[in-house]
Amino acid sequence: MTDQAALAPFTTLLDMELGTLDPQREVTERRLDDLRGMFLEEPEAGDSLVYRVYAIPAPATGANLLCSTTVLEPGTAGREYYMTKGHFHQVRDRAEVYLGLAGEGRLVMATEDGRHAVEPIRRGTVSYVPGGWAHRSVNVGREPLVFFAAYVGDAGHDYGTVERTGFPVLIVAGDDGPEVVANPRYRR
Amino acid sequence: MTDQAALAPFTTLLDMELGTLDPQREVTERRLDDLRGMFLEEPEAGDSLVYRVYAIPAPATGANLLCSTTVLEPGTAGREYYMTKGHFHQVRDRAEVYLGLAGEGRLVMATEDGRHAVEPIRRGTVSYVPGGWAHRSVNVGREPLVFFAAYVGDAGHDYGTVERTGFPVLIVAGDDGPEVVANPRYRR
Repeated sequence: MTDQAALAPFTTLLDMELGTLDPQREVTERRLDDLRGMFLEEPEAGDSLVYRVYAIPAPATGANLLCSTTVLEPGTAGREYYMTKGHFHQVRDRAEVYLGLAGEGRLVMATEDGRHAVEPIRRGTVSYVPGGWAHRSVNVGREPLVFFAAYVGDAGHDYGTVERTGFPVLIVAGDDGPEVVANPRYRR
Repeated sequence: MTDQAALAPFTTLLDMELGTLDPQREVTERRLDDLRGMFLEEPEAGDSLVYRVYAIPAPATGANLLCSTTVLEPGTAGREYYMTKGHFHQVRDRAEVYLGLAGEGRLVMATEDGRHAVEPIRRGTVSYVPGGWAHRSVNVGREPLVFFAAYVGDAGHDYGTVERTGFPVLIVAGDDGPEVVANPRYRR
């Protein structure tokens, strides 16, 4: 037996359409004011809800997994779709997995040396975010984008690097739907 | 940038009802013959399929996550419901998370010092299996039991301990549905 076995198993109920958890224990809410400076065009006045993250608490060690659901509202700021702040893991090599539950989105990823990748998020997509890739989700649909994520517990979050550099690409509303365009403000 | 960033992001499509993956890359199939000795009453002759595990390949290191779906068929051997072999992680303190997708099941867990826990598995259950807890899933319904699982990549599998000791409890078909009963052959 190990010390870890002192933790008891537990179950959380996940609403697979809405993304809410029962019991609901840790909720992080991000509004437009929390995302100032991250969109190319500043959003109009107002402090709309952009997303909520519902987390399942567990010890933040490399033996454990931290899981959460994210509910990202539909909307745009200028031509850019609503998105999460995006981050690297503080421990750079830690991976993360996203399971899409509802809505239509994109997972935008980037390495510190400037490579990028864009993967779809919708019901049933399992996206593998390898270590070293910053990740941001973007809601390109008209309904809330809902996904479940799991990562190695000691990964930590580095928001600062993305705040400084931006991502190499933006996802914007084009005439025929979402478009991936170069980010003119990206600097690494 | 880290070595991990050399891995490229990728997406796998998960059928949320059937549990199958596209692309399908690693499938483990367990039939009744693979489970001989694990049921209290030996199953009748025949080599029915009991379950399939569809895995998403990733490096088996502590920085990565290994994910899979399991499709466990309905059925019984004697009064016991069809179940997975069950295992400890070789690196004992590594946790695992189960997300139920379809069907009706039980997640039976046990520590090496003889404690046990039984949690439900059905669409939307997120079960946390802390390090140190062996885990086995049991299909108590009439349809396939389908779930998604993720664990820390270097966890490894120890099937031998469970083969030797069994689990403290069994899940059997009673007159009014599934019952949790003591395992008369359990020895730790």
